[in-house]
Amino acid sequence: MAEQGKQGGKLPFGPDYVRAISPYIAGKPISEVAREFGLNEASIVKLASNENPLGMPESARHAVAAAVAELGRYPDSNGFELKEALSAKLGVPQDWITLGNGSNDILELAAHALVTPGQSVVYAEYAFAVYALATQEIGARAIVVKARDYGHDLDAMAAAITADTRLVFIANPNNPTGTFAPAAALESFLAKVPAQVAVVLDEAYNEYLDDDQQYDSLAWVRRYPNLLVSRTFSKAYGLAGLRIGYAVAQPELTDLLNRIRQPFNVNSAAQAAAVAALGDTVFLQRSAELNRAGKTQLVDAFSRLGLESVASSGNFVLVRVGDDDDAGARVNLALLRQGVIVRPVGNYGLPRWLRVTIGLPDENAAFIAALERALK
Amino acid sequence: MAEQGKQGGKLPFGPDYVRAISPYIAGKPISEVAREFGLNEASIVKLASNENPLGMPESARHAVAAAVAELGRYPDSNGFELKEALSAKLGVPQDWITLGNGSNDILELAAHALVTPGQSVVYAEYAFAVYALATQEIGARAIVVKARDYGHDLDAMAAAITADTRLVFIANPNNPTGTFAPAAALESFLAKVPAQVAVVLDEAYNEYLDDDQQYDSLAWVRRYPNLLVSRTFSKAYGLAGLRIGYAVAQPELTDLLNRIRQPFNVNSAAQAAAVAALGDTVFLQRSAELNRAGKTQLVDAFSRLGLESVASSGNFVLVRVGDDDDAGARVNLALLRQGVIVRPVGNYGLPRWLRVTIGLPDENAAFIAALERALK
Repeated sequence: MAEQGKQGGKLPFGPDYVRAISPYIAGKPISEVAREFGLNEASIVKLASNENPLGMPESARHAVAAAVAELGRYPDSNGFELKEALSAKLGVPQDWITLGNGSNDILELAAHALVTPGQSVVYAEYAFAVYALATQEIGARAIVVKARDYGHDLDAMAAAITADTRLVFIANPNNPTGTFAPAAALESFLAKVPAQVAVVLDEAYNEYLDDDQQYDSLAWVRRYPNLLVSRTFSKAYGLAGLRIGYAVAQPELTDLLNRIRQPFNVNSAAQAAAVAALGDTVFLQRSAELNRAGKTQLVDAFSRLGLESVASSGNFVLVRVGDDDDAGARVNLALLRQGVIVRPVGNYGLPRWLRVTIGLPDENAAFIAALERALK
Repeated sequence: MAEQGKQGGKLPFGPDYVRAISPYIAGKPISEVAREFGLNEASIVKLASNENPLGMPESARHAVAAAVAELGRYPDSNGFELKEALSAKLGVPQDWITLGNGSNDILELAAHALVTPGQSVVYAEYAFAVYALATQEIGARAIVVKARDYGHDLDAMAAAITADTRLVFIANPNNPTGTFAPAAALESFLAKVPAQVAVVLDEAYNEYLDDDQQYDSLAWVRRYPNLLVSRTFSKAYGLAGLRIGYAVAQPELTDLLNRIRQPFNVNSAAQAAAVAALGDTVFLQRSAELNRAGKTQLVDAFSRLGLESVASSGNFVLVRVGDDDDAGARVNLALLRQGVIVRPVGNYGLPRWLRVTIGLPDENAAFIAALERALK
């Protein structure tokens, strides 16, 4: 037991790879910023967590209200109604679907179900922070592939796969950079991945893609038994506070994830809300349109201010706010003082940049005005 | 890569220890039983999942309704308000508290944060099924200690700890047997556990203990840096459908769990409901009284019917419904046909027994009447 003995006052617990993890840094909640900067909560503009500025759709609110009477009961462990609705909408059988406590849960289930300590996981520089966390917490080795133009270099990622690789994470569009990999590039990548390596294609922002970017990843799931497509209700569907996402994969891979899934991982309110939101195509369309207009509003302002930004296919824009490595933190603080919360991305290796969620027109305008003042 | 190669049509994915897991069997939802047996949902009595028969408290319903407007936002990752309320109620600092997506999440966080593949985990025969699942899914070795009188044999459990043991699970009261380990036995056990072995004391049914059984496990947490006490809002607090539980442990152990906790593991509706339920002492007291009366109602009936039952300190009773190993399944089916759902426990190695949740007086009466018919 010596290898786990007390060291410098540390407790004798836990593998080294768990102790080495830096916890995820969430966006500051509005209430915390209000307390910290002595601001009125109602005056704060939060563009930090890529939430839908329209909030939860009315249809989902009604569904939650209707579900309240049953919240003393455990949720349906198998999510029958939601899987039925997803199955009908996506055209895949129910046993191809895994429900998660947000798509974060799906990402972790994949890592835990497929990779053992010492094996490796491939993902891209500037990719979503949870890929690194999920890799670290299982004691796996991360192979981080250098980005190209702030996006995934898929050729380099395919080449980076080694004999002990068991999982590749790809985000499309990518968060926090917003970059998009076109269908042809993904298809060519999938064809190169060995059969024993699973690919998680994280499509959390899929619903924001323009019509000419849309692609049929479920057709690839039918073709590749090692592909899992992950999606969420936290972004365009407006249910971030309820926690629900899902995965689509062939039954054998789906079965593995479900063996380690916590039996009641998805709460009943989320299941009910997701069924409602899934059918609310009007809300989804309105959200996408609002996002397109807001993106133009932000990008035009950045252009006017002479700031470089990365072309985004998501509901956020990555913008470079200075030429020194303190720029992101400095401008972020100046924005916080004015009651505007965005996301600094120094922890992603992007200390000169900020990630701004696309909000309502007046939220975007308030951010732009605050940014102008912050840059002076 | 040969060790992961295709075998008999199986996919080349996942470690053997994940493939070997049998998924958790949840209680049948009312809707499923209604479909399967052609019954009216409203006529079905569900006493299968140890839920509070009063449902969610009114106070929590109001809290959920008030939270609905904010469900488009991500939850507070740090659960500030709930930790503040728990801290005040329990008299422990906030950094001693971990919030979980149900206490199931707490149990898994402990296993993942503390144990690596090949190390061992100790728990008791007839203990909660999730201990076995959490052990299997991390590739750890289970040391299952034979029960004594259907409860934990704590002396044998202490003796079973080996050099590679990193975690012990204890449920008090135990589910599915309802047995209770008194304070003195637990204290003596804790004193014997080596410093590098963490103990999870699972108190999911703590709020149902009689006054003369109450003990101060938080005093032990202050004394033992390797002790974690786990509790839930799913049972006496009536919030099973929302998914929320918590752990109390010293900051170093708490910090380890939080390093691997999914940042938004607890949804906003659950956080709001838990704050309300925690303050609703009237509801909690009413629930405990109802449970006491219902327990007498069930135990008297079992006695009248000549059926052995295990003395329970929880909100359920384990009853022996026959002398052959098909008895549990047979009587369960006969109950289902009459629209009464209880829990068969053959998967716990108790094929002659059924676990019955204590319901409302008329639910208990309906179950007893159905049981009498089933036994004929």
